[in-house]
Amino acid sequence: MQAPRHLISTDDLSLQEMEALFESARAYEQDLSGWPDVCRGRIAATLFYEPSTRTRLSFESAMLRLGGGVITAADMNVSSASKGESLADTVRVVCGYADALILRHQSEGAARLAAECSSVPVINAGDGSHEHPTQTLCDLYSLWIERGRIEGLDVVFAGDLRYSRTVHSFAYALARFRANIVCIPQPGFDLPKYVVQRLREEYGVEPMKADASRLGHLAASSDVVYLTPQKPHQLSLFTDPQGLSVGNVDAVYMTRPQTERFGADSELDETKYLQLGKRQLAAESLRDAVVMHPLPRRDEISSEIDTDPRSIYFKQAARGVPIRMAILAALLGRTDVLGSSTPGPEPSWPAQKSGLVCGNQSCICHTEDRHVGVRFRLVSRVPLRVSCPYCSQEIEFGVVGCSTTEHFHAPDSRDLRKVHPEHMVFFRDGVHAQAAGFKAARGASTPHPG
Amino acid sequence: MQAPRHLISTDDLSLQEMEALFESARAYEQDLSGWPDVCRGRIAATLFYEPSTRTRLSFESAMLRLGGGVITAADMNVSSASKGESLADTVRVVCGYADALILRHQSEGAARLAAECSSVPVINAGDGSHEHPTQTLCDLYSLWIERGRIEGLDVVFAGDLRYSRTVHSFAYALARFRANIVCIPQPGFDLPKYVVQRLREEYGVEPMKADASRLGHLAASSDVVYLTPQKPHQLSLFTDPQGLSVGNVDAVYMTRPQTERFGADSELDETKYLQLGKRQLAAESLRDAVVMHPLPRRDEISSEIDTDPRSIYFKQAARGVPIRMAILAALLGRTDVLGSSTPGPEPSWPAQKSGLVCGNQSCICHTEDRHVGVRFRLVSRVPLRVSCPYCSQEIEFGVVGCSTTEHFHAPDSRDLRKVHPEHMVFFRDGVHAQAAGFKAARGASTPHPG
Amino acid sequence: MQAPRHLISTDDLSLQEMEALFESARAYEQDLSGWPDVCRGRIAATLFYEPSTRTRLSFESAMLRLGGGVITAADMNVSSASKGESLADTVRVVCGYADALILRHQSEGAARLAAECSSVPVINAGDGSHEHPTQTLCDLYSLWIERGRIEGLDVVFAGDLRYSRTVHSFAYALARFRANIVCIPQPGFDLPKYVVQRLREEYGVEPMKADASRLGHLAASSDVVYLTPQKPHQLSLFTDPQGLSVGNVDAVYMTRPQTERFGADSELDETKYLQLGKRQLAAESLRDAVVMHPLPRRDEISSEIDTDPRSIYFKQAARGVPIRMAILAALLGRTDVLGSSTPGPEPSWPAQKSGLVCGNQSCICHTEDRHVGVRFRLVSRVPLRVSCPYCSQEIEFGVVGCSTTEHFHAPDSRDLRKVHPEHMVFFRDGVHAQAAGFKAARGASTPHPG
Repeated sequence: MQAPRHLISTDDLSLQEMEALFESARAYEQDLSGWPDVCRGRIAATLFYEPSTRTRLSFESAMLRLGGGVITAADMNVSSASKGESLADTVRVVCGYADALILRHQSEGAARLAAECSSVPVINAGDGSHEHPTQTLCDLYSLWIERGRIEGLDVVFAGDLRYSRTVHSFAYALARFRANIVCIPQPGFDLPKYVVQRLREEYGVEPMKADASRLGHLAASSDVVYLTPQKPHQLSLFTDPQGLSVGNVDAVYMTRPQTERFGADSELDETKYLQLGKRQLAAESLRDAVVMHPLPRRDEISSEIDTDPRSIYFKQAARGVPIRMAILAALLGRTDVLGSSTPGPEPSWPAQKSGLVCGNQSCICHTEDRHVGVRFRLVSRVPLRVSCPYCSQEIEFGVVGCSTTEHFHAPDSRDLRKVHPEHMVFFRDGVHAQAAGFKAARGASTPHPG
Repeated sequence: MQAPRHLISTDDLSLQEMEALFESARAYEQDLSGWPDVCRGRIAATLFYEPSTRTRLSFESAMLRLGGGVITAADMNVSSASKGESLADTVRVVCGYADALILRHQSEGAARLAAECSSVPVINAGDGSHEHPTQTLCDLYSLWIERGRIEGLDVVFAGDLRYSRTVHSFAYALARFRANIVCIPQPGFDLPKYVVQRLREEYGVEPMKADASRLGHLAASSDVVYLTPQKPHQLSLFTDPQGLSVGNVDAVYMTRPQTERFGADSELDETKYLQLGKRQLAAESLRDAVVMHPLPRRDEISSEIDTDPRSIYFKQAARGVPIRMAILAALLGRTDVLGSSTPGPEPSWPAQKSGLVCGNQSCICHTEDRHVGVRFRLVSRVPLRVSCPYCSQEIEFGVVGCSTTEHFHAPDSRDLRKVHPEHMVFFRDGVHAQAAGFKAARGASTPHPG
Repeated sequence: MQAPRHLISTDDLSLQEMEALFESARAYEQDLSGWPDVCRGRIAATLFYEPSTRTRLSFESAMLRLGGGVITAADMNVSSASKGESLADTVRVVCGYADALILRHQSEGAARLAAECSSVPVINAGDGSHEHPTQTLCDLYSLWIERGRIEGLDVVFAGDLRYSRTVHSFAYALARFRANIVCIPQPGFDLPKYVVQRLREEYGVEPMKADASRLGHLAASSDVVYLTPQKPHQLSLFTDPQGLSVGNVDAVYMTRPQTERFGADSELDETKYLQLGKRQLAAESLRDAVVMHPLPRRDEISSEIDTDPRSIYFKQAARGVPIRMAILAALLGRTDVLGSSTPGPEPSWPAQKSGLVCGNQSCICHTEDRHVGVRFRLVSRVPLRVSCPYCSQEIEFGVVGCSTTEHFHAPDSRDLRKVHPEHMVFFRDGVHAQAAGFKAARGASTPHPG
């Protein structure tokens, strides 16, 4: 049996595949009730370990609109889990009941683990703060429909940019499509450094100070930053000492303050949250911008603009159905939108006999330790950096040994290029490596001059 | 886009439309499995903010029997609501996932609010103590099937007539159809005055003392009242000083004591509740009566009569499916049972700049104040009476000003006939009106002589 | 209307019918998506009074694969029941919404009661510790598929044989099929005496000491017992003073320690539970054995053998779908696998005016006393033994009177052969019988010599 194709992260899809999904979704959207035979005889199972009615209903609607059936476990945390069953085993069983699994879980990396255990396609419907690819695809699709393209668009992100997973994932995806981002954070809730770093490393995005004078009230009390994958000389925007001047904005993406993730001594008084209303929308730059929001909203978008034609957040939510129809039909093999080859995740290796432990306490690898060993994936060779294949977070270590030569090396040693990942043994430091019988290689404590 | 037609109250339907729904339901009932293409490709969403398994399952069965699909949120109160989303926004999103919304909510007026926010038909599956139109239609349909008509029937209401929403709604509907009601209340649990008042005002029903001697044990300890929309001289029943003599009864509608709504110092010992058993059913007047009950029952119907051919309460429950099939098919536009014109609710106006507040603490307008302003509807012009368009309860006020003339008037002033509702400003009393810059009109404090 | 056929216990099916269901299931299994018209237009309702996601999802998958619809009440205990409705009434209502009811309930005998109240087929999806026939059929079917037959197979039962309902039901079914059972209990968790007694009385199974030397590590610390319906002289196995030598095993059926049913002062340290891993599977006798488990597992099967081709527990779980397809299609009358005649349960009689009370506190008859009278079924005539028709447990009594002759008899009196069950009146002892006006029959206090 060939391994099925999964959707755990938007990184599992090429840009071409995403655009093919958008084309497919557009056809569905034009006649939602016209496709009752596409998935006839197929069943999708929704396994939700935490409630998310909106996401669940939109998946179920998508499957039903394709003529398929749905079996639902809306609160897995109160059922099988109480008999002590692991997620891995639950997935192994339920994949025998359905043709696709749609999983929502509070632990990061849960969907990747599920994919390893499943004989049918797994779709990640949110794994903790990690990924929620169908939300990101819905956002991209909505932008693509409204603007006709994604590349080169100017998208404002406003509000809580620090804790919103949705915004982080959308930022990576926009950068892949070579769109530009204008950050208007709630003061104190900037995009986290690790997000900016990934944008820089993977997509060549450079943050630049922006002149927000044409953005009006919305940007009145924030330091606005422009993130673009383009080189400065490619920018048509005018740059002066005030920073890059923001011109016509294509979309404003508002976010909800993730108050449930603020500490008790929250820095943010909820009543002072950045709000988008008639006054803010009146800015010249926003004249043609569409207003987006992942929903649910609280007060960050005033209901006074609900009837403004630029407000598309409810349309955006409704588009969750056709884009999920496109995803389900493709993964179930009912359309040929996705290549038959399975790109799959990057390879990973077991971290046997080594001290390597994923440092993310919310990662699924800690709760599923009976079935899942610690594994690692290569982030870079020189310097050697590794990450957890489940939650994607980098794992820290001091030195790394080679089980063949029994030497150990500093992470920035060029010798590591020759060590196969299967032979890597990780240690907190050289003392631990020596205690395990490894000898220091040339340059183990200092970088090899090369 | 044309506004969809909703079912919030049986008042949204004409008598002709209800009878057309009954005809349609009868066809479905004759072959429940024979309609798998009527709603093929359509989806209904059940949004239940409080559990009501029976109602939910009968709607879902109806939709499936028509070949449609169902997406279910059986306990909305534990999911999205926890992220602080308003009902209005939830409806705006979920109506993008389905072709019809079936809503159950604990707040009165919730369904009317939902209808205002939805681009697809909304069906009220119970909003607090307010309305539950499909239950009423099921009861009417069951009576219509059993008796061949509704007009002129004699229907006994027995038990808790005070707290049972079901009985109140059924009473209004029977009065509209010009059927007669014989009230046999549990002592102390009579029909409330406001229900009798509405029956009198809207349907010309007059309560008359009844001679219940032919009703036997069931009426032994109650004061029996006869409610009829017919004039005394039209009555074929014999009237003497004992009251109107109750003859052959067409149906007995028993109700469950709504103990959850009794106070801690309940007047009613549950064990002394009026019971219908073999002894009570032996009364001469009940020889041909069918026995109905909205279910669930406790002990008010003895299981000893379950096999009596007159006991139709389980058949009545089963008829919830065909009548809901008829409703769904009609609202989804799959039959032409309902007129294409949308009668809709009576018009309402915003109560701007005025002290008007709905006094019903269970009304949805209080919890949805972010999205819903206070509005009012006219109940009568002289004297001026207004009600909340959501929960239908009358709203109290002292005087009313006209924003054009800047005069204020007493509610019974004939001058108010000339004031457009858009210009009405309500005040607690004249002092408040004057403080707001209004002057007393002629007769503002005393009725205008006309 | 003809009474529908139900599935409450595997005893409701003949061996031929079970094999016909297996044949039918095998056809479904070969193309799970190929049967979307078998139950088109039909609806199954899943009523679960306790959560069991796995069981529920496999039933719902089966119904959907047959093209039918499903309405779901996954947690009945928090809905209607709160309004004080009896199970009997809920069943009477919901059977009007569906073509089949799938019931899970915590009380023993609940499914039998439901069958009495339902106008459509009832399928028992587990009633307390009593029966779970589709689990047993799934186990039998899996064995039948893997081995091509059931008769004569040698099946090892290992682990908690005391509290596992699954194992008890499977044991009875294997005995009916004339298969042999090798018990390897967790020390202290042997098969209960009443199970062994029933195996002996109903199927002629005799427990014999077994020589487990060829079973290796798995049997190292247990007293192994061989249960066979065959006579010793029919056995091809070699018997010596060490006991019957266990040869090639066909299947190992592992069970989960039912820790939730252990007392607080549990005899079993969970960490010392019998485990099946590579070492145990290496035994010579197990070379060709398939490994089965009803799931969920904890640690009793090591994940190291998940990839062993003998491990079929996940396949076994997946086979829950085709076997339930076969059951649903048959009960809904869509296949002719089951005879049209309804064998039904053995007859039972009301225990009127008698002191007979079912002694099982978990039996549904105690909570449904408003609708269900105490009834009894005959287990044997001489001596007279009776059981509860709901939970199947024997009911104790001292003497039994005949309401016609007004004499009372000891249970072992041969005169009782002449007393019709309708006339039987049960008493705790002769004193109570005499107080009720019965006279001692000849031999009432001592056995009649015959």
